[in-house]
Amino acid sequence: MSRPNSPALDAILGQPFRVLDHGFIRVVDYMGDDSAVVQAARVSYGSGTKSVRDDEGLIRYLLRHHHTTPFEMAEIKLHVKLPIFVARQWVRHRTASINEYSARYSVVEDEFYIPSSDAVAQQSATNNQGRGDILDEASSNRVTANMSRSARDAYKNYIELLEGDGSGSSTGIARELARAVLPVSFYTQWYWKTDLHNLLRFLELRMDTHAQWEIRQYASEIAKIVEQWVPMTFRAFKDYRLDRVELSSTARRVVNCWINGENIEQSSSGLSAREWNELKDKFTF
Amino acid sequence: MSRPNSPALDAILGQPFRVLDHGFIRVVDYMGDDSAVVQAARVSYGSGTKSVRDDEGLIRYLLRHHHTTPFEMAEIKLHVKLPIFVARQWVRHRTASINEYSARYSVVEDEFYIPSSDAVAQQSATNNQGRGDILDEASSNRVTANMSRSARDAYKNYIELLEGDGSGSSTGIARELARAVLPVSFYTQWYWKTDLHNLLRFLELRMDTHAQWEIRQYASEIAKIVEQWVPMTFRAFKDYRLDRVELSSTARRVVNCWINGENIEQSSSGLSAREWNELKDKFTF
Amino acid sequence: MSRPNSPALDAILGQPFRVLDHGFIRVVDYMGDDSAVVQAARVSYGSGTKSVRDDEGLIRYLLRHHHTTPFEMAEIKLHVKLPIFVARQWVRHRTASINEYSARYSVVEDEFYIPSSDAVAQQSATNNQGRGDILDEASSNRVTANMSRSARDAYKNYIELLEGDGSGSSTGIARELARAVLPVSFYTQWYWKTDLHNLLRFLELRMDTHAQWEIRQYASEIAKIVEQWVPMTFRAFKDYRLDRVELSSTARRVVNCWINGENIEQSSSGLSAREWNELKDKFTF
Amino acid sequence: MSRPNSPALDAILGQPFRVLDHGFIRVVDYMGDDSAVVQAARVSYGSGTKSVRDDEGLIRYLLRHHHTTPFEMAEIKLHVKLPIFVARQWVRHRTASINEYSARYSVVEDEFYIPSSDAVAQQSATNNQGRGDILDEASSNRVTANMSRSARDAYKNYIELLEGDGSGSSTGIARELARAVLPVSFYTQWYWKTDLHNLLRFLELRMDTHAQWEIRQYASEIAKIVEQWVPMTFRAFKDYRLDRVELSSTARRVVNCWINGENIEQSSSGLSAREWNELKDKFTF
Repeated sequence: MSRPNSPALDAILGQPFRVLDHGFIRVVDYMGDDSAVVQAARVSYGSGTKSVRDDEGLIRYLLRHHHTTPFEMAEIKLHVKLPIFVARQWVRHRTASINEYSARYSVVEDEFYIPSSDAVAQQSATNNQGRGDILDEASSNRVTANMSRSARDAYKNYIELLEGDGSGSSTGIARELARAVLPVSFYTQWYWKTDLHNLLRFLELRMDTHAQWEIRQYASEIAKIVEQWVPMTFRAFKDYRLDRVELSSTARRVVNCWINGENIEQSSSGLSAREWNELKDKFTF
Repeated sequence: MSRPNSPALDAILGQPFRVLDHGFIRVVDYMGDDSAVVQAARVSYGSGTKSVRDDEGLIRYLLRHHHTTPFEMAEIKLHVKLPIFVARQWVRHRTASINEYSARYSVVEDEFYIPSSDAVAQQSATNNQGRGDILDEASSNRVTANMSRSARDAYKNYIELLEGDGSGSSTGIARELARAVLPVSFYTQWYWKTDLHNLLRFLELRMDTHAQWEIRQYASEIAKIVEQWVPMTFRAFKDYRLDRVELSSTARRVVNCWINGENIEQSSSGLSAREWNELKDKFTF
Repeated sequence: MSRPNSPALDAILGQPFRVLDHGFIRVVDYMGDDSAVVQAARVSYGSGTKSVRDDEGLIRYLLRHHHTTPFEMAEIKLHVKLPIFVARQWVRHRTASINEYSARYSVVEDEFYIPSSDAVAQQSATNNQGRGDILDEASSNRVTANMSRSARDAYKNYIELLEGDGSGSSTGIARELARAVLPVSFYTQWYWKTDLHNLLRFLELRMDTHAQWEIRQYASEIAKIVEQWVPMTFRAFKDYRLDRVELSSTARRVVNCWINGENIEQSSSGLSAREWNELKDKFTF
Repeated sequence: MSRPNSPALDAILGQPFRVLDHGFIRVVDYMGDDSAVVQAARVSYGSGTKSVRDDEGLIRYLLRHHHTTPFEMAEIKLHVKLPIFVARQWVRHRTASINEYSARYSVVEDEFYIPSSDAVAQQSATNNQGRGDILDEASSNRVTANMSRSARDAYKNYIELLEGDGSGSSTGIARELARAVLPVSFYTQWYWKTDLHNLLRFLELRMDTHAQWEIRQYASEIAKIVEQWVPMTFRAFKDYRLDRVELSSTARRVVNCWINGENIEQSSSGLSAREWNELKDKFTF
């Protein structure tokens, strides 16, 4: 007897997928696939739903009704290379296991993130945590030049701190201390292992347009992997999570008016102007 | 490329190992083995410890120094059939995923735990949560007869509640309610998935003599599986966890006196009589 | 300086609120309230949103956008008495701390759950995990008589197992073993501590009509406590969670047709008959 | 009725305790104290241990036997200001709640960590992750001058990226992108909330001499707070955790030889040279 396997994932095992300028994602190992979700759900239901539903119907049912534990039954381990500021966002997903490259043990390599020109954008005027318009080419070049110079200077200082001034080894300092001068644009790497349920949560949050552009590149690349790994789950995930619309009880009443052709204005809707506009954007009239 | 696998575990995949009178443990799936621990540790150390240690030495080092995350990198999924009162202890290990048979969906089967005669013991006189002497055969038989009759009567009531009194289906009640009469000796089953670190914690706590005898039978059976799956980790686990001795700072001072042949009495040792005796039992004089 | 406190919660501290026939919920301790949520959110935003929003607006924003960590900043500890079968559902919420009464240490008291007549219902014909029609009085009385007798018999056996047959203490067995004959209708109790975020998840899942009626009684009682403790959060929770409607991307397209008065049938909608009906039930036409 | 409180902690509530050059720790809120641990343990034991032990004896028993859940029943919330590289180590303690200052929302302040002269040390020759000798004054000054210059230059670049080159606001970039040039020596701040059990784990790992010197300063400061908050637990923690000695089964056999005055050499002990020396260092001969 052998473990259930995913041919699509076996085919890309160990293969690095490029993200940003020096980052990557590789699938190191995995356990289970769509069938693991189904298998776990069926043990809960026992004979109660035997033959009731086909696998895809069951997966869709589970996701629609926010069942979580069956999706914890599949697991994946990724090797990821990513800038420190992305790693700092990523690590907030606590239900996962991480082993990260340690700058206390080893010298950090001379690799840092410089955004491509289509990612160099102004502060958004409307979104306090996001980006607005992309800069023109000349400005963009000035920005990336500044960032590169800043990173190179920092790395030069780092090496100098490690090696001392050449007057003897006694003046080099410990790696754990020297690394304090390195910017958060420098790359680190880690093994990251999580289950499918928590991975979908990661994707939902990090593919969202409110997430920083850089981590969204990682999330999108992972989404492609998940789509190959668990195609049924991924389709349901898109329908019931990524592309869903949530209506608050107040918003539901507004939509009900629209359905019935009743007149309703924002001012009397109970929704703020912001929520009203967000709601209207979800439908075409 | 294919996933790393454990031939020893592949050989027993899906095979039920008997526990108690009707229980079992089966390995459903797994991910990684000793090499997954080593691989994860080495990414942390980067080139810093390349070639420094062989794999077993590294695993021993990690366990001795209470490193945890590398051991989270291997995962196992078990199918377990167990009495409800054992399940209630087991489920307190929160860092694991569970899908359990649901008595709301399906009718509970007529299987309940009756201890074998060597497990029928008195309340311990010294240990508030444990067992003392085993009962003589006649008493033991009386006990198991009582337990069997009690379980059979309960099951009869359960079926009657489900089916009604025969005067029509309208008097049977919902499964979720009828099951309230079933004793905690009845068997349930679940898929249980956890990582190696948390599995070792489970074993450490549940193989301990303070754990209830019944859950210890499950833990011992799992230990045999773990020994085959990750032999290096298991050897280190025995040496540094299962069979270790912990000396409080006070106990260390006492041992130091013993080493130096200095006279020391319990009364002046700083240890309670209980701790003093526990300490002496750890050494032979 | 003193800790922030909630006068409404201080007023009910330690007071038992009855649930089911012998159960209760008591607030033992708590930390923070609505202001703890706001305080934590504001440290994230720094000066970025100073004065932008009032507290309630901020809380609504956080909940609408599925922010979770600010709601982890308030904590509550409850003392709960509940039947074992309810405890078994409750404990699946893993992000919480529990200390439960141990039947290994102490003798279980003679208290078990018997449903009131309005809770004695048939198995649902349409819902595999739920209840249907309530039984008529005569049938209901037969059911509760059966359940009571079953529980009393079990308790009698339990005591006999503990005490032996009177021929000497040597024939009584250990508490941890004797309790195996007790049904899951017996009451246990525990201290349960969790944060507001995880408490709201608990409420969302356990106030749902798919949850078993008995645990819903506990959830409803806790909801009243939460409403007093964090009124702003609770209002937002009702609007954006409890009473919200989720539209899958497919369902959104259907609603869009309805809004625009376009003709659409279930057969061509992409929705199953079940989802189509569920969707229609969310609106009035 | 009012919540149990700790006068010692109330007295320092909100008060910042300095750590490193610009960091601090403040107690924002807390729930429970030693009595919460005792209360929770007693609910488990029921009447089984009523009056058996005094509170301190019970707490010592719980900690000695690695009971964990009673210590989860007390909770504390800290406001911490800390360098990013310390935050990156800290955040690996996953069972805690965090709300951190966001450099996407707000401009980072001009504060970075420069080690004091007694913390500027060479790489350790024996410990791959640690520090060795402290540098002489002249070398130390060169080091801190390098680090300061590096941080100031980075901050200058950061501001320039935010503001553009003065030719118009259109050339400034988004905060979330500009911050990429800031070194990990810059300070961030967060609210950190955890329970006593996980806090003790944090202290055990981060007060250890293998932890980086900087995070140890934070751990030591927190230890002082814990000592005031839960004095009984803290005393037991010192005795049974911080200052304990662990003997592997192999090491136990060696100590047993020493106790009995039997001859034993490292070569035949089963211990590596490193473990042998570590063991000898734990005792005085």
